[in-house]
Amino acid sequence: MSFLRNCWYVAAWSKEVVGEQLLGRRILNEPIVLRRLQSGEAVALQGRCPHRFAPLHMGKIVNDDIQCPYHGLRFSAEGACTFNPQAPEGPTPKSLQIKRYPLLEKYGALWIWMGEPKRADPALLPAYDFLEDERLARIEGYIYSKANYELMTDNILDLGHVDFLHETSLGCEATARAKTIVAVNGNTVRCDRWMANDFQGPLTSVLFERVGQRVDAWLDVQWDAPALMTLIFGMTDVGGARETGLETLNVHFMTPETETTTHYFWAGTRSFRTDDHELSAQMLEGGTAAFTLEDKPMIEAQQAMMGTTDLFSLKPIMLAGDAAPVHARRTLARLIEAEQATG
Amino acid sequence: MSFLRNCWYVAAWSKEVVGEQLLGRRILNEPIVLRRLQSGEAVALQGRCPHRFAPLHMGKIVNDDIQCPYHGLRFSAEGACTFNPQAPEGPTPKSLQIKRYPLLEKYGALWIWMGEPKRADPALLPAYDFLEDERLARIEGYIYSKANYELMTDNILDLGHVDFLHETSLGCEATARAKTIVAVNGNTVRCDRWMANDFQGPLTSVLFERVGQRVDAWLDVQWDAPALMTLIFGMTDVGGARETGLETLNVHFMTPETETTTHYFWAGTRSFRTDDHELSAQMLEGGTAAFTLEDKPMIEAQQAMMGTTDLFSLKPIMLAGDAAPVHARRTLARLIEAEQATG
Amino acid sequence: MSFLRNCWYVAAWSKEVVGEQLLGRRILNEPIVLRRLQSGEAVALQGRCPHRFAPLHMGKIVNDDIQCPYHGLRFSAEGACTFNPQAPEGPTPKSLQIKRYPLLEKYGALWIWMGEPKRADPALLPAYDFLEDERLARIEGYIYSKANYELMTDNILDLGHVDFLHETSLGCEATARAKTIVAVNGNTVRCDRWMANDFQGPLTSVLFERVGQRVDAWLDVQWDAPALMTLIFGMTDVGGARETGLETLNVHFMTPETETTTHYFWAGTRSFRTDDHELSAQMLEGGTAAFTLEDKPMIEAQQAMMGTTDLFSLKPIMLAGDAAPVHARRTLARLIEAEQATG
Repeated sequence: MSFLRNCWYVAAWSKEVVGEQLLGRRILNEPIVLRRLQSGEAVALQGRCPHRFAPLHMGKIVNDDIQCPYHGLRFSAEGACTFNPQAPEGPTPKSLQIKRYPLLEKYGALWIWMGEPKRADPALLPAYDFLEDERLARIEGYIYSKANYELMTDNILDLGHVDFLHETSLGCEATARAKTIVAVNGNTVRCDRWMANDFQGPLTSVLFERVGQRVDAWLDVQWDAPALMTLIFGMTDVGGARETGLETLNVHFMTPETETTTHYFWAGTRSFRTDDHELSAQMLEGGTAAFTLEDKPMIEAQQAMMGTTDLFSLKPIMLAGDAAPVHARRTLARLIEAEQATG
Repeated sequence: MSFLRNCWYVAAWSKEVVGEQLLGRRILNEPIVLRRLQSGEAVALQGRCPHRFAPLHMGKIVNDDIQCPYHGLRFSAEGACTFNPQAPEGPTPKSLQIKRYPLLEKYGALWIWMGEPKRADPALLPAYDFLEDERLARIEGYIYSKANYELMTDNILDLGHVDFLHETSLGCEATARAKTIVAVNGNTVRCDRWMANDFQGPLTSVLFERVGQRVDAWLDVQWDAPALMTLIFGMTDVGGARETGLETLNVHFMTPETETTTHYFWAGTRSFRTDDHELSAQMLEGGTAAFTLEDKPMIEAQQAMMGTTDLFSLKPIMLAGDAAPVHARRTLARLIEAEQATG
Repeated sequence: MSFLRNCWYVAAWSKEVVGEQLLGRRILNEPIVLRRLQSGEAVALQGRCPHRFAPLHMGKIVNDDIQCPYHGLRFSAEGACTFNPQAPEGPTPKSLQIKRYPLLEKYGALWIWMGEPKRADPALLPAYDFLEDERLARIEGYIYSKANYELMTDNILDLGHVDFLHETSLGCEATARAKTIVAVNGNTVRCDRWMANDFQGPLTSVLFERVGQRVDAWLDVQWDAPALMTLIFGMTDVGGARETGLETLNVHFMTPETETTTHYFWAGTRSFRTDDHELSAQMLEGGTAAFTLEDKPMIEAQQAMMGTTDLFSLKPIMLAGDAAPVHARRTLARLIEAEQATG
């Protein structure tokens, strides 16, 4: 199995990399160590020492460099060896270099580029401006999942599952009755649902203060390669303009650890009751519960049942809701194929 | 490694499948879901959804159908998709069919046929009438074992181990001194032991109220393919006719989960003190202890030491007691070979 | 991966094999059972029964023989079957023989010979006379490690790590400033460090009662195939003769369980304060803590990062301190190659 390399993946939420702490994380099967310089700049380096392959995240910061926990080699933010205790006077060999990965801090996240460094272009990162809009209230979470990342994007792209998997939290019959439009635009796949004059699910009805009321609601999902997704959920009065309603704007970013394990980063913002910290706490708790207790066990069970990461080799029966996931899978496969053909 | 497919395996004890509960169980490496209809009839279906391979046993019963836990597809007892929430008005495609396995409820067990359904003939199930004889007291148990099923049939077919592995519970020197007759009759292998005028082991002496007494005793084991066994243990006065004595009639049914893991179903009946529920409880506890604390760890350790499931490849030294196990292994190998030649 | 076979490995500390206890231990991937005869002589036998591959260490001693826990076969110290309960009158077949491994008890350890028995020559065991010098105080330990044994000999042969991995226990800058001499003499590799007029680390300064004092100190490591090492650490007054100082003499013996797991035996002796049992307890605690909490996690993490046991295939960058480890690795590789060429 191959991964798309020349693209941005979330390596961590910004808040995960603080002070002099070192964060070790495997991404696309490569060990990475994340840290901040005294300047505050975040840096991603190869996670294992080129000398004896010790995990650098077990080391510590010395003079703004990473010191290997085993034999004390120090590496700068650029990945150059700045000190070799076994030859403290002499020059450190050029070969004692560790790889530095392009890293971009944006939207409260650290974005890593796993492909050719010279092709790392910040402009290639899709826009998620709402994530750093200070007028909005924001929550975020991280979940480790024993499943392939495409199963996880499938999950968000086919929200036909909410009535069943999230029956008591998010589920409502409106999702199935929704008018659904799937659109492919270049490498972007969208799946928009419009639920007119219907009841919404338990948690969202509370959140939007519409318990027991019919509303017009929308649920718009967008996927960009490799596994970056926005999910907009909103509701308004029946017949009201969408602009008059309320929305949450959410992201779901999946980063492959390995073929069968995934780092799952999610965040949500809202423009209403933004000072209501208790509401934020409830939303964080509710989202964490839904993803951890409902999605995660199901997707991990699905992965275990599949016993492979190649979905199509198992000849799945396709339903209407698979249109968007299949578009995304084909787009990603095409991008990976193209990348490998040129690389 | 191959399994015999056109035969009956125990999928579960009848009592394990109750109400609207769904029981997921892997048999011959295939995921199965077991359930009862409102009529009480038990049904075995393919355990993973053909859409996205969710495990159906994590779902629930809706209108007497199984509803997939992930996207809500419903499947009837026949395995047909009866409802697709993503196209509630339209017909459900024929391809949305899950496999139904022939299932037979008999002797307090659910028997599954893993081979060609049209060849599933209830008459091919050996008779264990005593298991449903209401005049007898009955106990039963289920044990999950990390060992190949043939190691477990070997264990029952060579009871020469009881003096050592079950030294303080069932062991007695009489087993070694027994007159043993091994007989092969078609696909049935028997190993009968006659222990004349001797002392029996601690637990059985108590059970038959013969502590410290010499008795005539018998221990008759019968094996039928693939791994179905009866074990009759009885004793009577020295010189007395067998009919004048007391017996327990027991079964040991092994069902492969995988090559190296086994579902082990055992049951015992007795015709004496049938209303003595305390005795039943003691026998259940004693049997469970012997199988769980003595047999299971040994057979699992044996499997771990072997590192393969092909016993003969390791060139084991054969003792007298191996005659019956080897007959059974050869019979099963011959049946599997014949099945594959024709299939 | 191959192991050197015609050499002595530590199978256990003598004290681990006591009374009628059976010790099961896998060495070079082979299951071994260790025991003592009534005479006190220790014996190493094949650890699985040739009948049904039961682990013999789960059995018990009967009449000074090992009795198999499963079917009761008994094996003498020579590995001959002395009793077969399934044919108690008849002769036991010659084929019912288990392998006896040459075993040598010396230096408080049981040394096993995994190669051709006829080549097992006690003279091939390096001398560690101080381990049985009764004038010395002695401590010893055993640690199980999930890492290849050569990573563990590398660790001791390159003590450049102590300043970093053992920063708060053994570390001092003197190690890096030491005058280091690496010498290869036949199949022996030495790495001797001389630290003149310098401060030593926290624990050792306390041990030698030299806290806050400059001393002359030495740290001499010797490696012999396959993975037998001595480590001598001593200190004396600045400018004083080495003979006027104090020393600890230590051994580190690594025995491969598998390619990626190791039995690690270590011991230390000292010639001073030999009756101070509290000091012995502190040294045992300190050594155990350093090896268990500092070395072991690092070497296991290193192994996990490597994902292979062939260090050179990963093209490690070499530092000065790697001279001795690389000499040892090449010596061992040459010995294994020679053994396989002739065998």
